[in-house]
Amino acid sequence: MAFGWIDEQARLRRRAGLVRTLRPRPAVSPLLDLASNDYLGLAHHPEVTEGAARAARVWGGGSTGSRLVTGSTELHAELEQELADFCGAEAALVFSSGYAANLAAVTALAPHGSLIVSDAGNHASLIDGCRLARGTTQVVAHADPEAVRKALHTHEGPAITVSDTVFSVDGDAAPLAALAEACREHGAGLVVDDAHGLGVLGDGGRGAPHAAGLAGADDVVVTVTLSKSLGSQGGAVLGPARVIDHLVNAARTFIFDTGLAPAAAGAALSALRLLRRDPERAARARAVAGELYAGLTAAGLEAVRPDAAVVSVRAPSPEDAVRWAAGCRAAGLAVGCFRPPSVPDGISRLRLTARADLTGEQIERAVRLIGETRP
Amino acid sequence: MAFGWIDEQARLRRRAGLVRTLRPRPAVSPLLDLASNDYLGLAHHPEVTEGAARAARVWGGGSTGSRLVTGSTELHAELEQELADFCGAEAALVFSSGYAANLAAVTALAPHGSLIVSDAGNHASLIDGCRLARGTTQVVAHADPEAVRKALHTHEGPAITVSDTVFSVDGDAAPLAALAEACREHGAGLVVDDAHGLGVLGDGGRGAPHAAGLAGADDVVVTVTLSKSLGSQGGAVLGPARVIDHLVNAARTFIFDTGLAPAAAGAALSALRLLRRDPERAARARAVAGELYAGLTAAGLEAVRPDAAVVSVRAPSPEDAVRWAAGCRAAGLAVGCFRPPSVPDGISRLRLTARADLTGEQIERAVRLIGETRP
Repeated sequence: MAFGWIDEQARLRRRAGLVRTLRPRPAVSPLLDLASNDYLGLAHHPEVTEGAARAARVWGGGSTGSRLVTGSTELHAELEQELADFCGAEAALVFSSGYAANLAAVTALAPHGSLIVSDAGNHASLIDGCRLARGTTQVVAHADPEAVRKALHTHEGPAITVSDTVFSVDGDAAPLAALAEACREHGAGLVVDDAHGLGVLGDGGRGAPHAAGLAGADDVVVTVTLSKSLGSQGGAVLGPARVIDHLVNAARTFIFDTGLAPAAAGAALSALRLLRRDPERAARARAVAGELYAGLTAAGLEAVRPDAAVVSVRAPSPEDAVRWAAGCRAAGLAVGCFRPPSVPDGISRLRLTARADLTGEQIERAVRLIGETRP
Repeated sequence: MAFGWIDEQARLRRRAGLVRTLRPRPAVSPLLDLASNDYLGLAHHPEVTEGAARAARVWGGGSTGSRLVTGSTELHAELEQELADFCGAEAALVFSSGYAANLAAVTALAPHGSLIVSDAGNHASLIDGCRLARGTTQVVAHADPEAVRKALHTHEGPAITVSDTVFSVDGDAAPLAALAEACREHGAGLVVDDAHGLGVLGDGGRGAPHAAGLAGADDVVVTVTLSKSLGSQGGAVLGPARVIDHLVNAARTFIFDTGLAPAAAGAALSALRLLRRDPERAARARAVAGELYAGLTAAGLEAVRPDAAVVSVRAPSPEDAVRWAAGCRAAGLAVGCFRPPSVPDGISRLRLTARADLTGEQIERAVRLIGETRP
């Protein structure tokens, strides 16, 4: 019977306590949110939602086609210009998701015969990019520039190193400057995903590459998402104009995808302008993360010191992580629960996200509830 | 130098006349649009744009996280329920794009040791799904159920056949009933992308699988897009509830992607309700395509008889196709221009899309301008 093998997999998942189910939320949740990636608290900001609403009314409900046919509007061009300006890149290209942007950057920049050096902790979208690319992938130890150097040393010809700037699971940062140095010694390109850095790290939220002095470098390509700090949907690739032109001509997830919906472009543009006007939001998100970490460690919990706005807390087992997150939820607190196969090291954890708009009282309450519900 | 090889590729592209550039359009274009995939003319319908605007205001500019964390709203659930009801499927799952939906369906349904039989004319997103999947892919002749039968015959164990229902380039339809029969003989699943069928084919636009009597079948999985007939952005997988549950647990482009933006879900839901109220739109899109085809053939042009709402016209060469499309544009008509590497057979063509809201006068004008500007 077609798809019969699915039932056996479902049974194994149930037995391992790893079944995932969707839990649709209402428009106004009674829960204190430490689970979303809305780092700057902008997803519900009236300027952002109005930016979406206005764009839909002016530009339509969808972009109506591939960016190369009818799907490029002047709104997309405006967003690309302002994103590039903000991050200090020469040019930018907007995609329907950060996932699509990562697939595009990695596949288009790793042709047949090239080498991709990929951090062992990279996000699924970068890994899928490596799998789709024509080049050969070598996975290296997590956050290890020396390992990158050694891998590049084995190869003649085009090469790129691919890394998250901030790793989603533990919230730790990549050693960007050292990675760039290792790449430069070998004439390799550096492709980094700043999904969790944009809006949080760097001067006024300009991102981790900007903070590392890599903005505008001709051998660095940065991907970002519009769906975290910018409270919208979509992704973008930032880099030298010649690289962006190359993506327009070669990246399948650009050429064969419908352009980003105008409402998403409008929301992201409004959020970006808000951030430029109020750059303190970035520092505030980092400060909230620091306060969360300090409180959790003081309560005797095993947390990872945050480099950005993600705070990870170890759980003894997948079952404990699920029970812990459920306990938090019952007590009025939404936290993320990461467990296999969504974690590279097999370790389950609660994943907390610091929002710039959390109050001191909310931070205290969150720490207290997480401590009280620990398994 | 990093990315140095790009310049040589750019030079080759220029020499071959295959350079692609973005041409951002204004909000109100003076051109008659026969290039977008807005088959039902709903992208600018006030109910659709208001659906987007309202959703952004109520639910926020973005969904704020993975569908498994904070990215599932009751609006997503409502859209999934109504899409499944409309198409006659047991369940549905919404993605940030049709590209992501196709990657999810193919990768999650083709495990290690399985066979994927893939039509030679399939869309890039299905091809990338095959490349990412752990199963082995066998590409078979275009729209050839006998070739599918033979390929399936070579394999023991899980297998799927993957096909577009309407092929984007030439607008021809797949022989769905015969494909399903070939699959059933071998206990294989059938995975079809109805991107160009939903809203156009079947009773009231319920799509090609519905028209072929395959709606609700336990061995058929259908992917659709929200960005064509439904005038929005996003994609969905429709199928048996157990398959949808499997995708929630196993599909990387579902688990590791931010959920679809509320505005896109709201726009698609409004468009779907409009279509249910006014099912004649589907028949009208098909009729317009027929009128375009008749007019073009009468003018002596080589067009492919349309099975849905795409009309393809052969051009002598890539350069001629570009010149022809530019000539149309100069005369006030936007048409698609497909050429290598976006066409599987290397043949360049103009690609026209029939919109349900084109008037007889507009159709006549389009045919006249295409004839007058022929190379």
